[in-house]
Amino acid sequence: MTEDGLDAIFSPRSVAVVGASRHPGKIGYEILRNLILNEYQGILYPVNPNAIGIHGVRAYPNILAVPEPVDLAVITVPADLVLEAAEACGKKGVRGLVVITAGFREVGGAGVEREARLLEICRQHGLTMIGPNCMGVINTHPDIRMDATFAPTPPLRGGISLVTQFAKFCSLGNKAQVSLNDLLQMWRGDPDTKIILAYIENFGNPKNFVQIARSTTKEKPVIAVKSGRSEAGSRAAASHTGSLGGSDFAAEAVFAQTGVLRAASIEELFDFAMAFSLQPLPRGNRVAIVSDAGGPAIMCVDELVAHGMRLADLAPATQAFMRTWAPPEASLRNPIDLTPQGSLEDYRRALEAVLSDDGVDAAIAIYVPPVRVDEVDIARAVWQTAKYHSKPVVCNFLGRSENSPGFVELVGHSVPSYLFPESAARSLAAMYRYAQYRKRDEGELRTFSVNRTQAHTIIDRAVGEGRSRLRSEEVDALLESYGIRTVKTRVVQRIEELGQAANEIGYPVVVKAFGPEIVHKSELQAVRLGIRTEKELVDAASAMERQLRDRRMTVEGFLLQEFVQGGMEVILGMARDKVYGPFLVFGLGGIYVEYLKDVSFGLPPLTDRDAMRMIESIRTYPILRGVRGEPARDVAALQDAILRLGALVSDFDSIQEMDLNPVLVLEEGRGYCAVDARIILAQPSP
Amino acid sequence: MTEDGLDAIFSPRSVAVVGASRHPGKIGYEILRNLILNEYQGILYPVNPNAIGIHGVRAYPNILAVPEPVDLAVITVPADLVLEAAEACGKKGVRGLVVITAGFREVGGAGVEREARLLEICRQHGLTMIGPNCMGVINTHPDIRMDATFAPTPPLRGGISLVTQFAKFCSLGNKAQVSLNDLLQMWRGDPDTKIILAYIENFGNPKNFVQIARSTTKEKPVIAVKSGRSEAGSRAAASHTGSLGGSDFAAEAVFAQTGVLRAASIEELFDFAMAFSLQPLPRGNRVAIVSDAGGPAIMCVDELVAHGMRLADLAPATQAFMRTWAPPEASLRNPIDLTPQGSLEDYRRALEAVLSDDGVDAAIAIYVPPVRVDEVDIARAVWQTAKYHSKPVVCNFLGRSENSPGFVELVGHSVPSYLFPESAARSLAAMYRYAQYRKRDEGELRTFSVNRTQAHTIIDRAVGEGRSRLRSEEVDALLESYGIRTVKTRVVQRIEELGQAANEIGYPVVVKAFGPEIVHKSELQAVRLGIRTEKELVDAASAMERQLRDRRMTVEGFLLQEFVQGGMEVILGMARDKVYGPFLVFGLGGIYVEYLKDVSFGLPPLTDRDAMRMIESIRTYPILRGVRGEPARDVAALQDAILRLGALVSDFDSIQEMDLNPVLVLEEGRGYCAVDARIILAQPSP
Repeated sequence: MTEDGLDAIFSPRSVAVVGASRHPGKIGYEILRNLILNEYQGILYPVNPNAIGIHGVRAYPNILAVPEPVDLAVITVPADLVLEAAEACGKKGVRGLVVITAGFREVGGAGVEREARLLEICRQHGLTMIGPNCMGVINTHPDIRMDATFAPTPPLRGGISLVTQFAKFCSLGNKAQVSLNDLLQMWRGDPDTKIILAYIENFGNPKNFVQIARSTTKEKPVIAVKSGRSEAGSRAAASHTGSLGGSDFAAEAVFAQTGVLRAASIEELFDFAMAFSLQPLPRGNRVAIVSDAGGPAIMCVDELVAHGMRLADLAPATQAFMRTWAPPEASLRNPIDLTPQGSLEDYRRALEAVLSDDGVDAAIAIYVPPVRVDEVDIARAVWQTAKYHSKPVVCNFLGRSENSPGFVELVGHSVPSYLFPESAARSLAAMYRYAQYRKRDEGELRTFSVNRTQAHTIIDRAVGEGRSRLRSEEVDALLESYGIRTVKTRVVQRIEELGQAANEIGYPVVVKAFGPEIVHKSELQAVRLGIRTEKELVDAASAMERQLRDRRMTVEGFLLQEFVQGGMEVILGMARDKVYGPFLVFGLGGIYVEYLKDVSFGLPPLTDRDAMRMIESIRTYPILRGVRGEPARDVAALQDAILRLGALVSDFDSIQEMDLNPVLVLEEGRGYCAVDARIILAQPSP
Repeated sequence: MTEDGLDAIFSPRSVAVVGASRHPGKIGYEILRNLILNEYQGILYPVNPNAIGIHGVRAYPNILAVPEPVDLAVITVPADLVLEAAEACGKKGVRGLVVITAGFREVGGAGVEREARLLEICRQHGLTMIGPNCMGVINTHPDIRMDATFAPTPPLRGGISLVTQFAKFCSLGNKAQVSLNDLLQMWRGDPDTKIILAYIENFGNPKNFVQIARSTTKEKPVIAVKSGRSEAGSRAAASHTGSLGGSDFAAEAVFAQTGVLRAASIEELFDFAMAFSLQPLPRGNRVAIVSDAGGPAIMCVDELVAHGMRLADLAPATQAFMRTWAPPEASLRNPIDLTPQGSLEDYRRALEAVLSDDGVDAAIAIYVPPVRVDEVDIARAVWQTAKYHSKPVVCNFLGRSENSPGFVELVGHSVPSYLFPESAARSLAAMYRYAQYRKRDEGELRTFSVNRTQAHTIIDRAVGEGRSRLRSEEVDALLESYGIRTVKTRVVQRIEELGQAANEIGYPVVVKAFGPEIVHKSELQAVRLGIRTEKELVDAASAMERQLRDRRMTVEGFLLQEFVQGGMEVILGMARDKVYGPFLVFGLGGIYVEYLKDVSFGLPPLTDRDAMRMIESIRTYPILRGVRGEPARDVAALQDAILRLGALVSDFDSIQEMDLNPVLVLEEGRGYCAVDARIILAQPSP
């Protein structure tokens, strides 16, 4: 793939359609037809061994027969002829390929092999390729006007064609060569591209995606639908694109870190796109609603609040002003309900009044058409008023279709209009979210002085011995080598050794008996907390031993630990996803974790702000911050632990899974302490 | 309100429009126009003192001048003339009123008084009234054909008018007299009404609603949008209808108990309505998807799974059969992706094959129109195939508008079609949910033998003494009188009394010192658990006293409690909502409750199944049921406690708030025990 190749694909001076057909219904017919009907500004070369002309355009038996240079070849021939066609394109000196044909990696078996060979041909000839198994590309720039897809032109929406709203379209298909990351990099700097929409089944290389998307969203909004949320959906996505879909929570981490806006559905993707493409971003989250009906206004408020917005408090002067002319039935506290008695002029003045109020960052105009006022007049009043303010205005004309005259009037004058109040609310909320993303501090990648050699030694030894699970003392040493604090622990065989071990740790201590049958330690009273003296320690251990032996249980020794008190239990963990690579987990600890799922995720490399966001985004974060007489916990130390854990798992690919649970987070300034930890290494390949 | 009056409103032989107008834009003009244009089958009487005829219909100066009987009067005169008009209607012998005019309770002040007087006039004359402040009523029955609203006819959707899809429409406005409950009761038995849709701002009398809706949903689906989810939304709803909107979690309880399907938005309300009105209910939740594009199919799977459905496992024979004719690129594992290579015939056969598969309960047909196949042909193939099966089929024609030929073909032949795959998935899931509701066991109301006299005595004494908070021993006694088990407790002043108190309770016990400065008992070591002997008890208490006195804290006495071990901490509570009345809360206990909100709600009277549903619906329910070596807890006892609590708060209106936290739920068969409880009574009115 080259930049020049991408340029040839999106702005070609000439396009060959290899497999162009005279038969309606064939993909090779439809693509050529779309290119012609949408007035492609370059030269078209149909390639077909059996036709002299197609759609009246001179055709050639093969691409080498084309008398002039070809920038882009769109390949639509059957799968078993694609390699040959690509080879010919290479020889011809074509720079870009768009392979529409399916029957490659996504069908498995011979298809995988075929895709590998296709990719090899591209490499040999320096060809840049989109696809295979894709829908084609579009560039609406007036100098290009290329629609090289086989889909019919999407229908009008609010009077505006979806396609003409957007500068470029690209269906990536199997992404054998050109990936979403490549397109993001290209479109980030493209002045024609105001917003980037994506339908994502998987992120390709998530690490690159995080880096590229993070810088792209600072320039322009990226809105994406990500499928494969459910396990069943992931499986379907996997069979669809021939690659694993990955876990949805890792995907959530990617969205959170990159500032890419996730749309919940295809509908929402287009809803958001309309708002972003037509209106300015809001400066804050205070929304005023002007409506002629109470019901939809309330639904709108509910949805706004559910998505992080709030109802603006209108200035008393604004309300007093409205009172001078509004109908007596009107409710003038935000949301403003003019009732069906409100006139066109009332509606216009109300919108003007709220947009002029300094306490308002954005407005939603809701209109349930009664017969008395023409919807086009209302639409005109809305856009004319919106035009004089730099605050976003979105509309909901309830009960009207997207092609109704009011919609067309609004959208044609850059005011997004939605069928339902909830869609208007969610779209505005998405704009605010993006405005927040855009100015948020991404933080910095921290470096740590760690003892990498020691870590290497520990891991290598375990791998060398064919063990996938580290021993308790190895876990402690490994974490310690990266500066992650674990509870001090000693293991002794005999009661006589307890005193010295306890002196090394420092009182108070915890003592636990261990042995093959001692599973539920608390039930068996095989654990004693808060021991403060050697005498107490020896007494406790002796009593324990006696009591367990009475039950015919073997005591193999004692585990001595420092006694850490009063921390809040959290969990820190890491797992390695087949698609996303390593991701970190942070959350509330304790036995309820698995049901309450009060956790957050992060994908290394994490900046310090990423780590803080992980901490702040769990529901029980207020407890960490200190509430109701509970002390504030050492969140900074926790952040440090997350970042060090990120460094550790990035440095060692062989770490497959880690689980620090519980980690006790102590009072501010007193740090944290991992009480129990488990580390699993990747199974050495045979 | 009378049944006969409602009948006069929905099936009148004659309608007077009081305030009929000659001026377009006036509500009195539009209503008369809608009645005429939609071909009302009875006789119309415009009433207007200044016109001889309106729309060519003979007008009368007042209703008493109408020469024949009038069944229904629609009142549109200004607010200050409504009472006079209503009075005249009463004298005329009119049976039903629809008051469109606003300016009553919803504007407060004089409006409240005006509404009360209007209601009084209705009572005096036996008038049944819809409104005031409403949009009107519609009955589409061919013998009636009455559209007495001022809204324009809603637009076509999928080729079918929203209004003609439904039998009756009623806007209730202020619900001064006729309520949603009245309509539910009427429509429950109405053979013309197949489904009931509602937009609800509040439930009126929630207790009646629960009872009426519960029996209605067994007959036909009731789908509702409830606004006021957010606090801000509730405030807006309150000012809109002049009544308090109530808390959304209480609303959730109402939905859960009644089987009314809650739509998340107005859009979803109509989406669901289309599915329910056109297709049979699914017998199970196994869905097959047939599509020509992978992306939307995966989005559809995600949404299905998120809403409780699952992907059907197709029989090997079904897949093998499809393999014989499907294009080689097709993916034949559910979701079936025929790819754009699939022909019309492939699409038809695939749908037929999955609908014939016994492992499939419902199908979603997804179609992204390529140019090669006409969308109407596909639409025809879908409905013709669906017709021969008793399984629901819903469609998604992606990228097509709701008025495209394919949509019209589908919906015109009873197959719901949606713009987006997610809407199709959610609608199908709603049908399954309803099918489940319909066959679910509602359970029974249990009666308990309780000591009501004792409860009365306790509450009356507290009220008599002007106390709103019950004392600890009163709380225990009150709960005990209704058979709710609390931890045994004794309070003693002096150490010498401890022994006898402990004997009454039975060992092991807990002892706590109390006194004005002793707030954080654990920090001050003013609590000691698991005491097994009198000596241990006296030693512990003495040490406590000594140690607290050293810190100059006054020990006023000791609280002795039975030591309950090993239970899971839950919370049981009750609060009284201004709108909903008393509702019960059950959930996970402990300090995280307030952030994790793992709770469920119920509105008394609760059946035994309602109580179980409350228990089963918290996220941590698996822990109660017993997981990972944790024992199963006594859920039956917990259910009993919830039901008894419901009986207690239903019997005593003066109980304002209760909080049993924690309640320890012990192992199966060992019951539960409320360790701490707090009861607040309503402030006696001055």
